[in-house]
Amino acid sequence: MKITIAQQNYHIGNFPRNKTLICNAIEEAKSQGSDLVIFSELCIPGYPPLDLLDRIDFIEKCTQTVDEIAKECKGIAAIIGSPVINRNPEGKKLFNTAYLLSEGKILFSVNKALLPTYDIFDEYRYFEPGNQFEVIPFRGLRLALTICEDVWDEQPFDNEFEKQRLYSVSPVRELMKHKPDIIINISASPFSHTKTHARDNIFISKSKKYKVPLINVNQTGANTELIFNGSSLLVNANGQIVSRLPFFDEAIKTFTTDELFSGIAGDADTVQIPGPVELIHKALVTGIRDYFAKTNFRKCIIGLSGGIDSALVLCLAVEALGNENVRALLMPSRFSSETSVTDAEVLARRLDILYDIINIDKAFSTFEKELEPLFRGTQKDVTEENIQARIRAILLMAVSNKYGCILLNTSNKSEVSVGYGTLYGDMAGGLSVIGDVYKSEVYKLADYINREKEIIPHNTITKLPSAELRPGQLDTDTLPEYKILDSILYQYIELQKPAERITGEGIDRATVDSVIRMINYNEFKRYQAPPVLRVSSKSFGDGRRMPLVARY
Amino acid sequence: MKITIAQQNYHIGNFPRNKTLICNAIEEAKSQGSDLVIFSELCIPGYPPLDLLDRIDFIEKCTQTVDEIAKECKGIAAIIGSPVINRNPEGKKLFNTAYLLSEGKILFSVNKALLPTYDIFDEYRYFEPGNQFEVIPFRGLRLALTICEDVWDEQPFDNEFEKQRLYSVSPVRELMKHKPDIIINISASPFSHTKTHARDNIFISKSKKYKVPLINVNQTGANTELIFNGSSLLVNANGQIVSRLPFFDEAIKTFTTDELFSGIAGDADTVQIPGPVELIHKALVTGIRDYFAKTNFRKCIIGLSGGIDSALVLCLAVEALGNENVRALLMPSRFSSETSVTDAEVLARRLDILYDIINIDKAFSTFEKELEPLFRGTQKDVTEENIQARIRAILLMAVSNKYGCILLNTSNKSEVSVGYGTLYGDMAGGLSVIGDVYKSEVYKLADYINREKEIIPHNTITKLPSAELRPGQLDTDTLPEYKILDSILYQYIELQKPAERITGEGIDRATVDSVIRMINYNEFKRYQAPPVLRVSSKSFGDGRRMPLVARY
Repeated sequence: MKITIAQQNYHIGNFPRNKTLICNAIEEAKSQGSDLVIFSELCIPGYPPLDLLDRIDFIEKCTQTVDEIAKECKGIAAIIGSPVINRNPEGKKLFNTAYLLSEGKILFSVNKALLPTYDIFDEYRYFEPGNQFEVIPFRGLRLALTICEDVWDEQPFDNEFEKQRLYSVSPVRELMKHKPDIIINISASPFSHTKTHARDNIFISKSKKYKVPLINVNQTGANTELIFNGSSLLVNANGQIVSRLPFFDEAIKTFTTDELFSGIAGDADTVQIPGPVELIHKALVTGIRDYFAKTNFRKCIIGLSGGIDSALVLCLAVEALGNENVRALLMPSRFSSETSVTDAEVLARRLDILYDIINIDKAFSTFEKELEPLFRGTQKDVTEENIQARIRAILLMAVSNKYGCILLNTSNKSEVSVGYGTLYGDMAGGLSVIGDVYKSEVYKLADYINREKEIIPHNTITKLPSAELRPGQLDTDTLPEYKILDSILYQYIELQKPAERITGEGIDRATVDSVIRMINYNEFKRYQAPPVLRVSSKSFGDGRRMPLVARY
Repeated sequence: MKITIAQQNYHIGNFPRNKTLICNAIEEAKSQGSDLVIFSELCIPGYPPLDLLDRIDFIEKCTQTVDEIAKECKGIAAIIGSPVINRNPEGKKLFNTAYLLSEGKILFSVNKALLPTYDIFDEYRYFEPGNQFEVIPFRGLRLALTICEDVWDEQPFDNEFEKQRLYSVSPVRELMKHKPDIIINISASPFSHTKTHARDNIFISKSKKYKVPLINVNQTGANTELIFNGSSLLVNANGQIVSRLPFFDEAIKTFTTDELFSGIAGDADTVQIPGPVELIHKALVTGIRDYFAKTNFRKCIIGLSGGIDSALVLCLAVEALGNENVRALLMPSRFSSETSVTDAEVLARRLDILYDIINIDKAFSTFEKELEPLFRGTQKDVTEENIQARIRAILLMAVSNKYGCILLNTSNKSEVSVGYGTLYGDMAGGLSVIGDVYKSEVYKLADYINREKEIIPHNTITKLPSAELRPGQLDTDTLPEYKILDSILYQYIELQKPAERITGEGIDRATVDSVIRMINYNEFKRYQAPPVLRVSSKSFGDGRRMPLVARY
């Protein structure tokens, strides 16, 4: 028997597109003589559909699309994911369901039992948990069909306060009572560079423990913040990886059940996980590409300062969108260092992108003059720095509006964490590209960009970080060195350690307390920040919901 | 026996303050000879603590505070709410718990069984549902202690697709098996002007059905978006309201159980619900007041256009903060109508607030000039309108930064819905005061402000709405009349009706489709909007989570 994995990139609510993708894969699988083609979780609406699930018309569109696809399943079966109405009088209105389609109709369905409701997941907001655990007979095989979290009944969390066993039921244990031949897991697992090995281990441990091979089908592509890394897996009954589909790319792969049952592990080259920097790089490029493709935009604009953050974002944007779709604005002021413009120009020329230079001094002087009567007798302070940052945002947004480009935000996670940025200024943008990348990782990514030849100018990488909003300003005037800052931030944000347990070289309690104060004080800025491409286990945005008025 | 209700205003994570509030009420109850004082849900951390619940140090602070308060409970008992660690190996890490404190220690605890996870609620994100239903013996009475949603096993939703019975268990039905004498419900129910009667009916229907009196203790005050309306209730065994505590104010009230059991209904004057406009007005004033108090700010700045939205927000701010803490900036341009400045000045003088006038034409000309080389050969369009709105935001934020005022946003729900506003321009601000108030409700609130004498100038109320960003511009150039627009918006956003079922006088399908397109297209703007004071059943912000890249 032949089985096909369809690792695809769905677009939320774009039913015609998702249907076409799925039907094309069914055709391809047919042409390869496949018996069964497996798609990922909620492939019909795309994942995550969020509150579109509250709309009856949206659910009806899902149901209709499932029926249409079922009609295509003749001579081949398909497993697809879709929400379906819960007809019981009690409970949430929907189930998160996997269907086996065959002979032109729905043959079986399985409802997801474990509903992740933490971090970026809100599945219990919409879905009633399934509580039936039966295997599906299919051409002489017994399939244990599970949906994503159903195999994650035990999992490691970065926050050690989090329980490893969030659920009182283990769907796989229940299914094992019916002696399945294969575990199938359809998923929509968002990428986090700290979770790639853990994810493999979930599948490996289940296969090994129950001595049953496992097929995981993940989606790929990005939907705003969430980036799906693909990397669908075949694992044999010894818990060895037989085959891995590519990271972040679509792929359709057909294999025989003999390959799966024979238990031959794939070679290291084909199944290993790339390093975290390479993965983050791919994830960010995917994130940019899909945000534009799925919102029907082609072009972006970036404010290029000569610093490393905007240089990195520019390189990622060129890779994602092509140099013809990327333009930059250089906006020096009286406080810019001499090399700021030259470094930025060198990069823009190397990448062969359109760029313009507008000095912001005239606009700044106009505001100073207009505000003079109101500010008489006051000292210069952060107000004047913010005015400069906001003038730059006006110029960038003007180009964005006039030419239909999306402004890419270039703030990194370290500065966003401590509020080192201006709301409606450098915090502006349609998408935050590196808002989940700490400054220390920004350097690694810059080195990765330069791995074959220098693209980002050496000077941009080596100069001391500065906002250049007042004479001689350096980031370290206000912040600890990034190495120390990032370690504190990681322990506080990702690991959620209490202040007294945040430790490390060069870290003292006063610094920890001051950094935590900055993080907490600046929740109000992050509330209005653009969506952030998520690459860590705890990104700003929907995965981290903090009260603005807390005194803690 | 005497029981005291403590309807209080807690501050999230401010343990010393919450403890003081609670201990003061315990003292007051003691002095009134009370046997039991009842506080609201999660009064120890304040509600909603959101992801602070993911921090072990935060939970330890809760536990410690509960222990400290228990020590104060000598000669009196208290019911308080706090999160507590779930010691079972499986399940979510916390319970949402009500404690009975007496004799200096914790005597009983009850875990919330029904965990609202919809709209603005995310309780299953943190809490394991309780599944024990026992009455608490207390001085010869049997108390059925429930927490908020526990009595909402059946409830009406504005979206008719939502199920009325979200849960398969009814805690009250379970507790009735143990024949309680009183149902106690401690709650943290956020205000929605469409839900005040429904809320009463929940309590009335339970009392009536089971012929048991009910005591509800709600919190009051606001935590960012969420405003708690107080209105704690005593309901007798006939389902009649015996007593209602005030809306939106703190109150401590002691009564005898005889009063509750005797079944005498309170008179209409004391127990009736005020009209929706009066409630919304009180809610908004409370929301502003507490946002400032709880973030430790006193002063606000408002951009005053001469239009009705900013006029209303100014009046609300003066009521919440006092005229000495409110200042305004009038920022006319070449496109402002003659009366814009005079109307705004009349209002500012009537309210006796500090105001300044800065004409934005010079700044606008500077930007036009600087952008001229980039924009050569293009037509004027929304770009130039946005530049003006963003110049105003720079000026407002400059005053905000220089003088430590919070900028209050003045966008109404109608314009926010359809994206009729400029990101980083008039959409800026620390708090959106009327972002959950449709334009038609803005007029009603303005009339309410003027109910005794004209405060908002007649001309401000009667003139045709205009953004004044190009010559002769009117809102109706781009949008349907507000009466029609608001009806469509309400049916789409609150009721979540499919397009084909949105109907009413003057509403045709083309208009409906065009409005829905505008709503969906502008999700990206709302993503970066300030927090919105919530007064409806479906406010923008955390209660409505829409994918940005959806094609639907």
